Order: sequence, then structure tokens, then C-alpha cells
Amino acid sequence: MIGVMTRWLDPDEQRTWRAFLTASRGLMETLDRELQRDAGMPHAYYEILVRLSEAPGRRLRMSELAKLNSSSRSRLSHAAARLEESGWVRRESCPTDRRGQVAVLTEAGFQALAAAAPGHVEGVRRHLFDQLSPAEIDQLRRISEALADHLDPDRPTT
Amino acid sequence: MIGVMTRWLDPDEQRTWRAFLTASRGLMETLDRELQRDAGMPHAYYEILVRLSEAPGRRLRMSELAKLNSSSRSRLSHAAARLEESGWVRRESCPTDRRGQVAVLTEAGFQALAAAAPGHVEGVRRHLFDQLSPAEIDQLRRISEALADHLDPDRPTT
Repeated sequence: MIGVMTRWLDPDEQRTWRAFLTASRGLMETLDRELQRDAGMPHAYYEILVRLSEAPGRRLRMSELAKLNSSSRSRLSHAAARLEESGWVRRESCPTDRRGQVAVLTEAGFQALAAAAPGHVEGVRRHLFDQLSPAEIDQLRRISEALADHLDPDRPTT
Repeated sequence: MIGVMTRWLDPDEQRTWRAFLTASRGLMETLDRELQRDAGMPHAYYEILVRLSEAPGRRLRMSELAKLNSSSRSRLSHAAARLEESGWVRRESCPTDRRGQVAVLTEAGFQALAAAAPGHVEGVRRHLFDQLSPAEIDQLRRISEALADHLDPDRPTT
């Protein structure tokens, strides 16, 4: 099968693909390491707290939270259990759906997020936005939206 | 501290950052899932096999392999142990450095890579390159290289 019909990457594409892998992985690992060091939470937990903080009543159905964070239900359940142990999130049964569950941001969770946010946002600026020109930032948004739309045409856009 | 001196993201930057997170995470998860399904290996293992296949004698020092894949030594050691169990990689002591170790791609490992490559490359095309115009692919390369250079000015560029 090898070589037959396969559209192999040419050297330029290979270079682009490897640079993208290195950049995206490196950025996520750096931000994750900094959040762990400065706020005691991985980036995935930070994102859950952000989504809850933005929701009305600081609460979201678990299914909605999974969709917003492009996360699997099982991974989200694990994270929510850990966040509940920390006292940052509380899970309640859903009043309108007996099988559903709602995650609620606690006051302690809100305070943990408020303490973590300035340092994390500064990291996103330093490692991403400060490295790019305004034109490149615009290009990155259009490229990222095209890729995200392809992977999940129904994804929420906020 | 909140709000004081913090350069918060404006709505456009917020949108760019979230689209980038969704796209890069979604792309890696999709490629990883497809490689697991079609070739029985995660993307991280695939990358190790690729690097070894490109090296003279299909062998690399573990330290060099870690640098090429922007991987921590401990994560690479874990992956190498699993690849050795599969019979795809063999570890040898380094002839020029008694403390060092060399990873060698076995013939079975080469065959596993050769079997996995066409489907994986097709996935990279379908989920990345086919979604972008030639200009956007060029932009993505320059953006990724700027970010990667900032995170690791000494990174290898191939």
C-alpha cells in the first residue's frame, strides 16, 4: 500500500506541520506548567472554572460544559470530581432532567479563578499575542476558525 | 491584584485564543484517535518511530530524541519502554557515553510505521492542509515558527 495514492507531505508542508506541532504543544505545556506552579491547577481545570464563571448563576449542565470545552464527558467527570474535592465546584442534580447533572462554581472556586487569572492571561499574552503582529493575530484567528469548523461544524463560537 | 496592571484580552483576542485552543486540541485529539483506531498507537509513539526512521542507522540517543520531539526525558522513557514491549524499539547502552542510552528502531517497528504512515498523512492533509489556502498554510508556518522560536530558541528546525 505504501506510496500508492498517498498524498505525502512535501518538504515545505513537513516543515509547516512540525512547526505547528512544536508551537501548539509547547504553548499548551508552558501555560499548563505556569498555572500549576502559580495557581495549583492544570489548564483544563482553569478553563472549566472560566466557563462556569461566565454562565448565569455560575452554573452549567455537565453536557453543556463538555461541549463548550470540547471535552469528553468522561474526562470532564473526572475533572469535576477533582474540582469538587478542592471545594471549587459543586455538582447538583439537574432540576429539569433527572438524569442530568449541573456543575456550580463555589465562592472558593470563584476566588481561586480570580487569583489565577491575571498571571495566566499575562502568560497567554507573553507566549502568544506578544510574539505576533496584528496581521498575524488576525491570520491565526481565521486559520483556527477554519480548522475548528471542519472538526466540529456545530461547535459553539464563543 | 485583579485588574491592576493585567493586560486582559479584548473580545477579539479572546475569540482568537479560544479558536486556537479548540483547533489545536481538536486536531491533535482527532489524529490521535485515528492513529489509535487504525494503527494501534498514539500520535506520540508515531512521532518517535518517525524520528528514528529518519536517523542514520535508525538510531538516536534518548537525549537527542527527547529534544527532537520537544518531550520530557521521563515521558520519553515511558514511551520507549512501551515501544520496547511492542517490539518496535530496542534500547542499547551508548558506546560513547556510559550513562547515555540509544533507541534503535527494529524492523518490526519500521514495518509498523510504514503501515501507519499513509493513513496518518492522509489525516493530516484532510484535517489541516485541505482546510487552508496556500496563503494560509504559509501564514501558519510563519506564525508557528515565531511561537516555537520564542518558547525554545535552541529548538531543532527540522
